[in-house]
Amino acid sequence: MDHYSGLVRSTPEITLPLRLDADAAVPLPAQVASQLRTLIADAVVAPGEAVPSSRALATHLQVSRGTVVAAYDQLLAEGYLSATPGGSTTVNPQLRRVLPGPPRPPRPAPLQPLPRLDLRPGRPWTRQLVSPAWKAAWRDAASSPVDEPVPPLGLSALRSAWTDHLRRMRAVVRDPGQIAVTAGGREGLALLLTALGDRLDPGRQNEQVSTGLTGGIGPVDSHPPRGTTGERRPLRVGVEEPGYPSLRRVPARLGASVVPFPVDDRGLQTDDLPTGLAAPDVLLVTPSHQYPLGGSLPVDRRQALLEWARANRVVVIEDDYDSELRYTSGPLPALAALDDPADGRVVLLGTLSKILTPALAVGFLALPDWLVPDVEATRHDLGQPVGLVAQRAVAGYLASGALRLHTQRMRNRYRRRRAQVVAALADVPGLHVYPMDGGLHAVVESDRPEAEVVAELAAAGVWVSPLSQYWSGSGTRQGIVFGFGSVNSEDLDRGLALIAAAVNPEPS
Amino acid sequence: MDHYSGLVRSTPEITLPLRLDADAAVPLPAQVASQLRTLIADAVVAPGEAVPSSRALATHLQVSRGTVVAAYDQLLAEGYLSATPGGSTTVNPQLRRVLPGPPRPPRPAPLQPLPRLDLRPGRPWTRQLVSPAWKAAWRDAASSPVDEPVPPLGLSALRSAWTDHLRRMRAVVRDPGQIAVTAGGREGLALLLTALGDRLDPGRQNEQVSTGLTGGIGPVDSHPPRGTTGERRPLRVGVEEPGYPSLRRVPARLGASVVPFPVDDRGLQTDDLPTGLAAPDVLLVTPSHQYPLGGSLPVDRRQALLEWARANRVVVIEDDYDSELRYTSGPLPALAALDDPADGRVVLLGTLSKILTPALAVGFLALPDWLVPDVEATRHDLGQPVGLVAQRAVAGYLASGALRLHTQRMRNRYRRRRAQVVAALADVPGLHVYPMDGGLHAVVESDRPEAEVVAELAAAGVWVSPLSQYWSGSGTRQGIVFGFGSVNSEDLDRGLALIAAAVNPEPS
Repeated sequence: MDHYSGLVRSTPEITLPLRLDADAAVPLPAQVASQLRTLIADAVVAPGEAVPSSRALATHLQVSRGTVVAAYDQLLAEGYLSATPGGSTTVNPQLRRVLPGPPRPPRPAPLQPLPRLDLRPGRPWTRQLVSPAWKAAWRDAASSPVDEPVPPLGLSALRSAWTDHLRRMRAVVRDPGQIAVTAGGREGLALLLTALGDRLDPGRQNEQVSTGLTGGIGPVDSHPPRGTTGERRPLRVGVEEPGYPSLRRVPARLGASVVPFPVDDRGLQTDDLPTGLAAPDVLLVTPSHQYPLGGSLPVDRRQALLEWARANRVVVIEDDYDSELRYTSGPLPALAALDDPADGRVVLLGTLSKILTPALAVGFLALPDWLVPDVEATRHDLGQPVGLVAQRAVAGYLASGALRLHTQRMRNRYRRRRAQVVAALADVPGLHVYPMDGGLHAVVESDRPEAEVVAELAAAGVWVSPLSQYWSGSGTRQGIVFGFGSVNSEDLDRGLALIAAAVNPEPS
Repeated sequence: MDHYSGLVRSTPEITLPLRLDADAAVPLPAQVASQLRTLIADAVVAPGEAVPSSRALATHLQVSRGTVVAAYDQLLAEGYLSATPGGSTTVNPQLRRVLPGPPRPPRPAPLQPLPRLDLRPGRPWTRQLVSPAWKAAWRDAASSPVDEPVPPLGLSALRSAWTDHLRRMRAVVRDPGQIAVTAGGREGLALLLTALGDRLDPGRQNEQVSTGLTGGIGPVDSHPPRGTTGERRPLRVGVEEPGYPSLRRVPARLGASVVPFPVDDRGLQTDDLPTGLAAPDVLLVTPSHQYPLGGSLPVDRRQALLEWARANRVVVIEDDYDSELRYTSGPLPALAALDDPADGRVVLLGTLSKILTPALAVGFLALPDWLVPDVEATRHDLGQPVGLVAQRAVAGYLASGALRLHTQRMRNRYRRRRAQVVAALADVPGLHVYPMDGGLHAVVESDRPEAEVVAELAAAGVWVSPLSQYWSGSGTRQGIVFGFGSVNSEDLDRGLALIAAAVNPEPS
C-alpha cells in the first residue's frame, strides 16, 4: 500500500484531511508539515484549535509517531502551531492577526471555522423555534405506533396540512392528492426533474423532430414504459440569470442541461422567451421575490409566462422560498394561483427552510393533476426520504397553528432588521441598495470592485457573498449579498458599519 | 401609487390576497367586494372563517375604512358574509350547502384496502419499537437548539454511531469520515449512483475506447469539472438475477442501464464475470443473504469478486439489508471487511429498514476514502435529506444501546416464527422450502403454477409475492415468497395452513 490517508478526528470538533504518498520524493514529515500549513492558511483549522495528538495522527496515517512529531516540531518552530500548558498542541492563536482573511473557496469546505460574523445570505433566526408547540409535535409523533405505512407521496395528514398552508398563506387552492411531501426544496426539485426526465424518451424526441411538432412535456403524452437501456437526451432546464446557485446545481448534478434566462429588476424577462424546439423542458422561476435581485414579477409578465408555457409545453417550477416574509406590502398571489390545478403548467416548490430552518429538511411540491402519477411512480421507486416521525411532527406543528405564530414573530423581527439595514446604508455614497420588500438578505451594488469589498470584510471577520456568484457565467453587476436574518441587532449594526466602510469607495 | 395590495391577516389564521387599482373605472368598494366574492367562490376563504375587521383591511389596503365597510355591507346583503353575535364578520357558514365542494381530481385513492393477512415479504415487527429509549431519543433530539449546521454527509454524532454499529455488528472498521448519512437504502443507492455518474464524462469514455483501456471507475481518475451540457453515457449497473426488485428500480429511474448477473443458491456466480469494457461500472450484491434465494456468498467467491472488481475498476455495492437477523449461525463478515478502507472497491449500503422499520428512512453508506469527496460534493449540491432532529434521534437511539437490545429481541422473535414455517411446510409433498438462515421471509418453490397459488391465496385473503417477479426477465423458478416478520404467531399459523394447502399440487 503506497497511500496513507485518513480523515482523522483529533478532538470532538476537528477533522484533518491529510493524504500522504510513500512513493513521493518529499519525505513524509515534510508532506505532513506542508499539508498542515495549507490547512491552516486556508483556515480549515482555525487559530486556537487543537490538532490531533501525534500518536493519534500517526496511527491513523499508519506512519511512525516520529514522522508526526518531526512535522509538528517544524511547525512549532515556524509559529504555525503552539504548545499549550496542558500539553496539547493547537494552531497558534496569534495567527489571527497575521494570516489574510479566509479566501472563499469555490465550494465551502465541510468544516469551516466559525467566522466572527457570518452574514452569508439565506439563514433564518432559529433560536426561537424550539417552542413548547415544537417539542409537543415531536413528542406526539414519536409516541405513536410506527406500523402505519408511509405512502410514496407522504402521510395524508401532512399533505392536508400543506394544502391548508397554501390556501391561507398563498391563496393557492389544491387538493391533498396534488401534494408530494419532500425533504426540502432541492430534494423536491430533484424528484420532479427525475420524474420529468422519464418522459423524454428518444423515440418521442425523434418523432417531434420529424413531424415538426414542438418539444416539451404535457398531459397528452403517452408515458412509455421505461426500458433498461437508459438512453435519453438530457432534460433542458431553464434557470434565472442571476439566480439561486444552490438550485441551479441540482439539475446540473442530475445530468440536465442548464440554460440561463435573463432577469431584470422586476424578475424574469418574458419578452423574448424561446419557442418550439428551442424552448426548455422546464423553467425554474422565483416570481414572488426574485433571488437575489428582489423583483416581484408583474402580472403582465406572469400572464405572458403562463401563455408561453402552455404553448410550448414547458413545466414552470415556482420556487416559493420566502414569500411569507414581506415587510412593505403583501406579495402578489403565487403564480400557481393563476394556473389551472388540473392540467396547468406550474409546479409550486414549497419549503420551510427560510421560515423555520433548512435543517428541518421537509417541504412539498404542489402538482397539476397530470403530473401526479409520474411523481408518485418515481417516489415509489426511489423511496420517500422523509421518515414517519418527521412527517407526523411537521403535520402536527402546522395543524397546531404554531407555524403561523412563528411566521408572524419572525416577520416582525426581520422587519426591524431590514429597517436597520436601510438606516445604515441609505446615505452611504457610491452604493445602491436594492429594494428589499421581503426576505432575509440585502443586495448592495457598489462602485468599488466586489472582490476587494468581500476580502476586506472577510479580513474584518465579516462573511458576505459576492453578487457576481449568482450569475452562471460572469456576473454583470458587482456588489455584495448579505443576510440579516440570523444575527441579533447588535451584531448586525456592527456588521453594517463595516459593510458601509468597505463598500464606500471614498471613505470620509 | 395606483396599486394597493396586501396579504392581510384577519385573525391569526387567515390572509387575504387583494389587489386594488385606484385608476380603474370600477369604484374601490366594488373592487373589494368583487375580489372577495371570487375568493369565497374559489374556497380560498372557507365558510365560517372570519374575514379581517374593516379597520384592519382598510389600513393594509391604504383605503378609507368606509370603502371596506361599503364592500362588506354589500356582501352581507348578498349572503356571502354574515355578522356574528360577537361583532366580527365571517364568511356565511351556510354557504357550505350552496357552493360546490372543492373538485376532487379523478385519481385512484392511494390507500388500498387492508388485506386480511398481508404476508408480502420485507416488513419487520414494529409494535415493540416505541420503547422508552425510542421516545427519549426523539424527545432529547427535539429539545435541543436547531441552529447547529448539518454537514452534507451528516451529523458527526450519527456518523460516529454508525461506525460503532458497523464495527460491533459487522466487523467492519471504518472512520466516521467515511460514513455518509442517507434517508435509507434506496436513497443511499441513488446518492452513490449520482456521484458515480459524474465520473463518467464523454471525454474520458472516448479516450478509453481509443486507447483500449478498460472502463470503470477508480481512485486515479481526475475528476473533470461538470459542464452545463449534461451529456454523458449512462452508468452501467449490474444487479443480481434474481434480485431485490425495489433496488433494481433505482438505477433504472436514474437513467442507468441495468445488467443482470446470475446467482445460484450460494449467491452471485463469480466464474464468468465480464471484463474490460464489458464490465459494468457498478455491481450491486447481497453477499450476506442473497435476496431472495437466501445464499451466503462463500469466501472463495468473495475473493474472486474483489479481485475482479479491482482489475476492472468496478464499484461493488454491498447491500447489507438484514445481516443482523441470523438464526442458525453467525453471518460471514461483511464483504467490506475484506476490502481496503482507503482505496478499496466496496461501498456498504446500510439500512435500519429490516431491523427497525422502513418508515424511519435513515441509513448510511460506508465509503472508501477515494469516493468520499465525490459523494460529499454531490450531497452538498443536492442537500442532506435527513433532518437535524431525525439524525440526532437516531444517533441517540444507537448510542443508548437500544438498537442492540431491540435487535436481540427481534432475532429471538423471528427465530420462533421461522421454526413455525419449517414445522408447517417441511413435510408437505411437492414443494421445496429454501434454507432460511436469516431474514424475514421464506421462499417456497412448488410444482404447481405460481400464478394459481398466488391467486388462490389472495382469494383466501392471504397476500404473498410470486417468486418469478424477482427476475428482471422471465423467472426460471416458480413459487412464492412470503414474509413472517410482521405477523403474530396465530396469524402466521393460519397463513401457513392456507399456504400449505395452496402450494401442494395434490392435497390429501
